[in-house]
Amino acid sequence: MFRGLSAFPLTPMYQDKVDEPRFVNLIKRLVVAQVDSITVLGSTGAYAYLDRDERVEVVRTAVEHAQGVPVFAGVGALRTSHVLRNAQDAEEAGAKALLLAPVSYQPLTEGDVIGLFEAVAGATDLPIIIYDNPGTTRFRFTYDLYARLARIPNVVAIKIPGALESGDQARNRLAEIRSSVGAEISIGISGDASAAEMLSAGCDTWYSVIGGTFPNAAQSLLRAAQIGGSGQAPSSETLLPVWDLFQKHGSFRAIAALAEESGLAQRSSLPLPIQGLNDEERVAVREVLEQLHLS
Amino acid sequence: MFRGLSAFPLTPMYQDKVDEPRFVNLIKRLVVAQVDSITVLGSTGAYAYLDRDERVEVVRTAVEHAQGVPVFAGVGALRTSHVLRNAQDAEEAGAKALLLAPVSYQPLTEGDVIGLFEAVAGATDLPIIIYDNPGTTRFRFTYDLYARLARIPNVVAIKIPGALESGDQARNRLAEIRSSVGAEISIGISGDASAAEMLSAGCDTWYSVIGGTFPNAAQSLLRAAQIGGSGQAPSSETLLPVWDLFQKHGSFRAIAALAEESGLAQRSSLPLPIQGLNDEERVAVREVLEQLHLS
Repeated sequence: MFRGLSAFPLTPMYQDKVDEPRFVNLIKRLVVAQVDSITVLGSTGAYAYLDRDERVEVVRTAVEHAQGVPVFAGVGALRTSHVLRNAQDAEEAGAKALLLAPVSYQPLTEGDVIGLFEAVAGATDLPIIIYDNPGTTRFRFTYDLYARLARIPNVVAIKIPGALESGDQARNRLAEIRSSVGAEISIGISGDASAAEMLSAGCDTWYSVIGGTFPNAAQSLLRAAQIGGSGQAPSSETLLPVWDLFQKHGSFRAIAALAEESGLAQRSSLPLPIQGLNDEERVAVREVLEQLHLS
Repeated sequence: MFRGLSAFPLTPMYQDKVDEPRFVNLIKRLVVAQVDSITVLGSTGAYAYLDRDERVEVVRTAVEHAQGVPVFAGVGALRTSHVLRNAQDAEEAGAKALLLAPVSYQPLTEGDVIGLFEAVAGATDLPIIIYDNPGTTRFRFTYDLYARLARIPNVVAIKIPGALESGDQARNRLAEIRSSVGAEISIGISGDASAAEMLSAGCDTWYSVIGGTFPNAAQSLLRAAQIGGSGQAPSSETLLPVWDLFQKHGSFRAIAALAEESGLAQRSSLPLPIQGLNDEERVAVREVLEQLHLS
């Protein structure tokens, strides 16, 4: 289950509520594109901004329209008891795995993070994906911590951040992580611009931002990376204009603007205080859409 | 109202609930010590971890026991609509001012932060204190942004982070901020170890962690700094062992351990996943308490 393309859809908002028709439409597109799994409530899915009821509804809606494609759900929160509640909610709503990031306000220690993962593992039967995203959680994992968490029985996968490495660097990084966590743990890459290299190097999964909104573009890249084999990642270059937008605005704001300008979300689809791109910035977004014909 | 000692009490927890009797006891100690204001739900008060009902109850309880000492309330949250709700709740519960930090998961832009402050200012009649705490929010203010926010009518004060400057450095920093925000804005220092220098340099307020739990110690330091005048801050050295604990463990974990070892909070008073200090680390905490006779 933890392989191939895991698509991270936006949770489009409209006037401070989840825009359910557009969310359903995103899920249906993922089903048609035959993604391997759908991860709702990732960072792209704005989990950190949604309240409990909204999160439950998002998971339920996704499962209802996923036609059997496994749905994974982000359950991170600042307080352990809230995470446990989210995990239980997600399980009841039909999620097949939990994505867990060590969200922080006060910086966390390794001991805090181990305690968090043990608490969640003890409260659910679902498999858990370690979510390493220092750009949003500000927590820095060590390979040693990966190894310790990987020994918790339900921890089955890890989502590592992109690092724009190529060739040998990518393979060496993957080998180091693999030797830390053991062969049983699925290793997935996020950071779409790094995906081709890391998939070519042998990552099991691509936890993909672009895949949540333009799944066909992601599928093409994935197949090229898998066929291309070591060091070859030709089609990532096709998407360079997208990676440039991600680099410039952050993938969250950029993918929302791409979705909005494609009619897949309404303007101002991000939860405030996060403002979408301004009119001037959207000119470049529309140019990318015209150039690439993303779908 | 925005001057002198603003004491930041812990919100002690017990088994994942607010330990109300101990919270009330902390408030009563602050009243007896004649602090100038009480800021509940600061970072020290764990606001980021508490749900809406808990926050309301904390503000209400503090106001009920404050005997007229003005109570300020932290209202920060990741989503603007939640901040607005918290602001309205705090106003209804009797808070006299709002403390607002630009809490982030996705990094915020200056435009986002301006939008947030304008939204809150438009929704409340209460004065607003800008809360600059990059260690927890990961948002970095510029003096130019200070200036822009200071022009919003209800914005009346700013809480700046400590920087361990001394003498001329401290005075220069304060002068730069003062010239950015104008003479009408109250400038307060946080970062207890920096307080004596910055108060001597002319800061209006000390937003104090230690003052929330050991208000007499804070009052002594404040008076010494005010009397000492420029560059003189004798009594901060007395508290060096406390600042060392703050430096080593972060002020949040350190003040909780000091409170727990003094009997002012029960063991494990912080919201999980944040674990308190371990037994070995507590030996040093007890030594500090024995040495300094904090009250």
